[in-house]
Amino acid sequence: MAKQTKNPSASCVTMTELVLPNDTNTLNKLMGGRLMHWMDIVSAIAAQKHSNRIVVTASADNISFRHPIELGDVVTLEAKVTRAFSSSMEVSVKVFAENIPSGTKSQSHSAFFTFVAVDQGGRPIDVPELIPETDEEKEMYDGALRRRQLRLVLAKRMDPADASELKSIFDVQA
Amino acid sequence: MAKQTKNPSASCVTMTELVLPNDTNTLNKLMGGRLMHWMDIVSAIAAQKHSNRIVVTASADNISFRHPIELGDVVTLEAKVTRAFSSSMEVSVKVFAENIPSGTKSQSHSAFFTFVAVDQGGRPIDVPELIPETDEEKEMYDGALRRRQLRLVLAKRMDPADASELKSIFDVQA
Amino acid sequence: MAKQTKNPSASCVTMTELVLPNDTNTLNKLMGGRLMHWMDIVSAIAAQKHSNRIVVTASADNISFRHPIELGDVVTLEAKVTRAFSSSMEVSVKVFAENIPSGTKSQSHSAFFTFVAVDQGGRPIDVPELIPETDEEKEMYDGALRRRQLRLVLAKRMDPADASELKSIFDVQA
Amino acid sequence: MAKQTKNPSASCVTMTELVLPNDTNTLNKLMGGRLMHWMDIVSAIAAQKHSNRIVVTASADNISFRHPIELGDVVTLEAKVTRAFSSSMEVSVKVFAENIPSGTKSQSHSAFFTFVAVDQGGRPIDVPELIPETDEEKEMYDGALRRRQLRLVLAKRMDPADASELKSIFDVQA
Amino acid sequence: MAKQTKNPSASCVTMTELVLPNDTNTLNKLMGGRLMHWMDIVSAIAAQKHSNRIVVTASADNISFRHPIELGDVVTLEAKVTRAFSSSMEVSVKVFAENIPSGTKSQSHSAFFTFVAVDQGGRPIDVPELIPETDEEKEMYDGALRRRQLRLVLAKRMDPADASELKSIFDVQA
Amino acid sequence: MAKQTKNPSASCVTMTELVLPNDTNTLNKLMGGRLMHWMDIVSAIAAQKHSNRIVVTASADNISFRHPIELGDVVTLEAKVTRAFSSSMEVSVKVFAENIPSGTKSQSHSAFFTFVAVDQGGRPIDVPELIPETDEEKEMYDGALRRRQLRLVLAKRMDPADASELKSIFDVQA
Repeated sequence: MAKQTKNPSASCVTMTELVLPNDTNTLNKLMGGRLMHWMDIVSAIAAQKHSNRIVVTASADNISFRHPIELGDVVTLEAKVTRAFSSSMEVSVKVFAENIPSGTKSQSHSAFFTFVAVDQGGRPIDVPELIPETDEEKEMYDGALRRRQLRLVLAKRMDPADASELKSIFDVQA
Repeated sequence: MAKQTKNPSASCVTMTELVLPNDTNTLNKLMGGRLMHWMDIVSAIAAQKHSNRIVVTASADNISFRHPIELGDVVTLEAKVTRAFSSSMEVSVKVFAENIPSGTKSQSHSAFFTFVAVDQGGRPIDVPELIPETDEEKEMYDGALRRRQLRLVLAKRMDPADASELKSIFDVQA
Repeated sequence: MAKQTKNPSASCVTMTELVLPNDTNTLNKLMGGRLMHWMDIVSAIAAQKHSNRIVVTASADNISFRHPIELGDVVTLEAKVTRAFSSSMEVSVKVFAENIPSGTKSQSHSAFFTFVAVDQGGRPIDVPELIPETDEEKEMYDGALRRRQLRLVLAKRMDPADASELKSIFDVQA
Repeated sequence: MAKQTKNPSASCVTMTELVLPNDTNTLNKLMGGRLMHWMDIVSAIAAQKHSNRIVVTASADNISFRHPIELGDVVTLEAKVTRAFSSSMEVSVKVFAENIPSGTKSQSHSAFFTFVAVDQGGRPIDVPELIPETDEEKEMYDGALRRRQLRLVLAKRMDPADASELKSIFDVQA
Repeated sequence: MAKQTKNPSASCVTMTELVLPNDTNTLNKLMGGRLMHWMDIVSAIAAQKHSNRIVVTASADNISFRHPIELGDVVTLEAKVTRAFSSSMEVSVKVFAENIPSGTKSQSHSAFFTFVAVDQGGRPIDVPELIPETDEEKEMYDGALRRRQLRLVLAKRMDPADASELKSIFDVQA
Repeated sequence: MAKQTKNPSASCVTMTELVLPNDTNTLNKLMGGRLMHWMDIVSAIAAQKHSNRIVVTASADNISFRHPIELGDVVTLEAKVTRAFSSSMEVSVKVFAENIPSGTKSQSHSAFFTFVAVDQGGRPIDVPELIPETDEEKEMYDGALRRRQLRLVLAKRMDPADASELKSIFDVQA
């Protein structure tokens, strides 16, 4: 029987949060940990929508916090699945921040999370294949393999010599 | 004037958290985002202790969530600074989980976070140099340079061709 | 000088929330007060987007809770401004709930909130006029006057005899 | 067998809350949604006391937020059942706010919530009849029928032409 | 000028809380620390009402947790000032718990907290004298002196030999 | 069969908390109730570690709040079991506060909590005996008997005339 397929648009999720006092440090900037917490929730919902399953976080890729987000800002997070691998899914999450009254321009962060779909007993279970549609979705789909190798190397679960996709980013003649 | 120096032991922080219902998903496992939130707080305190400054999260490295943590578990997080670079610091954070009544063995996660020390106006400010003491601390100190290059490459702020330290992990003859 | 105008699409906000244990009663259903709290936040952000101002809640219209929402459900809230009156705005908020793993069909609630735009000193300040575009937006825009009269009558700030728009819903020959 | 009866005084509940930073907007005023959350909890407890059952929120009537409540204020909420209809109850909730150190006079909001008593399976179950005692309780008891028709009309579950009690507030000769 | 006086009834505060999942341990019992948190808030409000000042907690007396309180219980806390000493006040707080659907009888805890009234700079400031009225209030007023000596002895700020009131409870012929 | 024994070091727990806006009063000082909540959690974990059981809070001894703790301070709590009595354990908890950027010296509070170990049905169950090792641990172990009598007298569960250990602190010739 042919495996079920889904498009990225089926897993799109938008989450909006208001930065409250308890989310900030003593300089009134959003704490990085709170933002990671929101990123995990919105990308978990995207993975749930793709798989129609309970999902558990498998990994969070490097996150770089370049733009401080202020108390009172409106934070918008957008997530969608970029590629599926048997029981796991990679999710792209983008973050925009906007201070509406002061008219401050929006800023952005982005990251990739991976999730594993599980059954009620917590065992991994297969998910639909993802078929990218737009150019940006196709680029994300292609890059997912390279990012997956990086994760496995960093988690010491793949020998760097075998990470053929990954080597390409270092312009190496293997 | 000689720059001030500090040992890793001066920045050691231990944090203990109890996994409560709102921290868990519908399978009663700790959500990844909550754990990242705790990791950010404990490592920020370690960076504060090293720098005696307010600090802001600059980045969180890849985190792999291999071991599910259960509702009611006691989670212990240990952080210490591994290396300082002018105004930024890399912090290592290790996570242990223990279910005391059921006698479940403890499990572990680990990750690296980086922080920038800032003054009251939010501008970066120099921090003391870190002098590693134990063998583990020296190994972490040496690896910090490689991880820094990976962060810069991933954030597209360094050309992979210039990441000399990083290439070595792919056994490449440059 | 002509007053600034905006379309409803400029104030659209989508918020997504996961129903956690502390949001539920002892039957594991979302408590009505938590849902109202979320409705207020998402509609306040919509009013901020329309006015580019800080806003304060002026009123919440009748809310009927017909469909129980369960622990673990994904709740999506969509808000947009329906009409502006000098310094106040009416916002429509729609609520969808979905239990992804069990495949339970989504359900809906809806309500209207009103907000007043204020300056830093908390004084009311004029907002742009709203120009409806779609048929649904035009219908909401027209109904806003009737709902406004109902609010004023219910708050004892308008004599029912003067609520000409409102009477029409009772099929009365005045 | 005669149906059980209860007086309003049997369901009186007083709740006191301190306005904390996370309850406020950037002008340090209590957010409307937080107040609605508290109103729902205190009135649910009143309905529980009347029915000795688990209750679920059925509706919240129009709430007008005329008086801003400040950070640090003490908010007192008082709820009691005004009338019972087979398995549902209307609850009146009054809100007082007081800034004790600054001596600011107390202010008030009020609203009506309705609840349905349910058994462990979530099915509606009959509640005791309410017998009003004081003049204010009798007036609330009488008005409950009119407010109930308004809720049904607004929820599109009653034809306005049949809302005989409601029409009277518009001074209409039917 | 004569010092201002107040009766205990002027500082009476009633607080009602619902025991939610995050308030409980893995046996679904209310955690002692959460109850102490609520006791501190309700008694601080009582001390504010007596003094019309900001107050800070000075001490909490021994609390014995004899009766487990369950998830879903309604907890009622009642506080009032028992005696004033220049800038400090002793507050009595009583706790009742009730499981309404199961008809479980209410249970009780009680404790004494002390607070110091302070001005905006945090400096202690005199409070009105308390004049007890009922027999129970008079008994509490008399016992306050003995409890105060016990606090001072336990905090090592009074020589036990000078605690004349306290000795009496040990039936000692001094 | 000989009863199991454990040393105090087996139950040592360190908890670190950051004082956030919602933990403070309007003078930006940590509220006493929040600190008691943290003290209860850290000492409960220490008692769990000693007994390898679920534990419930039995009592909290007098706590004196002499040193105000500020918003943004890092609070460190250290707990360990001081003595075991069949199914109950006394835990000592010490609190340190530090404002890292301002270089404010650390301050301290301390208190004793007692816990009862229970089985899954909530029934008390025996715990290992505690064998003190250091001089400070031996002093705490000896004092535990005296503090236990004080608790029983204060809870009206022991006749003061029988509190032989307790009388000694009042220098009384019995």
